[in-house]
Amino acid sequence: MDTHVSASMPHDMTSTELDQWSNHWLAVVEEALSGWISPQAPAGLGDAMRYAVLDGGKRLRPLLVLAAREAVAHGSKDAALDEAALRAACAVELIHAYSLVHDDMPCMDNDVLRRGKPTVHVQFGEAQALLAGDALQALAFEFLTPESSAIPDGVQARLCRLLATSAGHAGMAGGQAIDLASVGVALNEDQLRQMHRLKTGALLEGSVMMGAACGETTPQALSGLKRYGQALGLAFQVVDDILDVIADSATLGKTAGKDAANDKPTYVSLLGLEEAKSYAQSLLREALDALRSTGLTHTHTLAALAERVVNRNT
Amino acid sequence: MDTHVSASMPHDMTSTELDQWSNHWLAVVEEALSGWISPQAPAGLGDAMRYAVLDGGKRLRPLLVLAAREAVAHGSKDAALDEAALRAACAVELIHAYSLVHDDMPCMDNDVLRRGKPTVHVQFGEAQALLAGDALQALAFEFLTPESSAIPDGVQARLCRLLATSAGHAGMAGGQAIDLASVGVALNEDQLRQMHRLKTGALLEGSVMMGAACGETTPQALSGLKRYGQALGLAFQVVDDILDVIADSATLGKTAGKDAANDKPTYVSLLGLEEAKSYAQSLLREALDALRSTGLTHTHTLAALAERVVNRNT
Repeated sequence: MDTHVSASMPHDMTSTELDQWSNHWLAVVEEALSGWISPQAPAGLGDAMRYAVLDGGKRLRPLLVLAAREAVAHGSKDAALDEAALRAACAVELIHAYSLVHDDMPCMDNDVLRRGKPTVHVQFGEAQALLAGDALQALAFEFLTPESSAIPDGVQARLCRLLATSAGHAGMAGGQAIDLASVGVALNEDQLRQMHRLKTGALLEGSVMMGAACGETTPQALSGLKRYGQALGLAFQVVDDILDVIADSATLGKTAGKDAANDKPTYVSLLGLEEAKSYAQSLLREALDALRSTGLTHTHTLAALAERVVNRNT
Repeated sequence: MDTHVSASMPHDMTSTELDQWSNHWLAVVEEALSGWISPQAPAGLGDAMRYAVLDGGKRLRPLLVLAAREAVAHGSKDAALDEAALRAACAVELIHAYSLVHDDMPCMDNDVLRRGKPTVHVQFGEAQALLAGDALQALAFEFLTPESSAIPDGVQARLCRLLATSAGHAGMAGGQAIDLASVGVALNEDQLRQMHRLKTGALLEGSVMMGAACGETTPQALSGLKRYGQALGLAFQVVDDILDVIADSATLGKTAGKDAANDKPTYVSLLGLEEAKSYAQSLLREALDALRSTGLTHTHTLAALAERVVNRNT
């Protein structure tokens, strides 16, 4: 899809550089997740949890945490805050993974394919899928509060607060409730935006803010990063809706065309395909503007991630 | 049921005094829960969350938090730590309530009656019940990490850690997974104890330890309180199994005789009714011994709560 922004957008990271950065951190995150999600959890629960999280997904949320940490680290190292950011990166991915497990269940979207594999309830049964999701949510908060660690208490508490707020009734779970109530209902653009702002936007924005919590920031920087996270979150959903129409299931690794089949409102059904593409571009510009407003100098990875979100084809 | 311990057990709180203490705190907890669980959550989610939590249950876990706080407050007041304990009391109740909502769902126990009311999925549908449970878990961690508060960061982080560990794969959720795998399976007493130690014991013990985190303690006191929580947690489950056999649904406010009907192993099926009653008494003695070993002087409410857990008939 052609939503590439013109070369006048200021960002100084090439696509290859972003690949190198991403590949490095994806390996670090995967290793941490694999090490921290114990296969020892009783009665097969650990297997279901690992199946839900490992070897799959684009890990956008962890990458956002780590890129935001980079932006507020100002080029300096701090082992405790680096650890906090890695833990936060893994924690948001656990929340994302649990939400997919529950969302795929028969009483919700009843989806059988996810990341090219059978969904957790297909593989392990509904009851185990329910428990695995519940346990993954708890584990996210365990990740953020290690018993013996140099991570300052204030950072631990702030990370828990940001994650809980992003995931809960005023964030992701609230958005899912609106989604549930909106099948077959004609939403206007404001209502659709509110649904997505909560359902996917809150955790994406939360990822950025959790990364930002792992460093020194000014109110101006925090406000710009928040605006970046909001624009990115919305852009992500608009592109998701576009891909649901134009991509096929094999490329997506999940069932394509589900939204139309379920009579769910989308940006494409509301705005039309071309208008939706142009909306995604304007959100990208907004995200990059917001980054410039932070006054931070190490925001090039965040900028490149926003471009990739809008230009992705899966 | 006659599991009353002999008068030689040292505790100096009468049943009436415990009633007064409980009634005071139950009202405080109910008001806090009602104020903090917003009915404004989108698309009916707030209604389902409030339905799941308010106006029901014995609130044993919150009372344990508050009694443990009392034990480590040494008779002195501290507004920030008192607030921490109230927040912790409400948070453990949210975790307990979410676990009941999910446990009652058709793919788990498929129960239609809880606390004398239709279960959440019967009242609001399965998808909303799933989301309400998820949102309640997130809200518990939000309760523990208020943005503007005098509660020390270290206490906030420690409360999150204790709650996440008690609720997750190595606690409540892990116990539920064992329970799931044990239907129709002949467990021995060790395996049954391990299941209950996680499924109900972990959160009861966690409640005591969260209360203990809201004050100054010695390692000796913490170790005694932990032992108290473990004995109490196990006693609670043994008595639950006894009541499932001897009480009726109207008294319990939930379906009685379910365990036998579902071919689930219980302490009564394993030990016989009389032996199970005597085991509950020995666990009570162990809990009271553990309290004496703490060296704390304000443990009379914890002692009275343990007696009530064993002597309850609902």
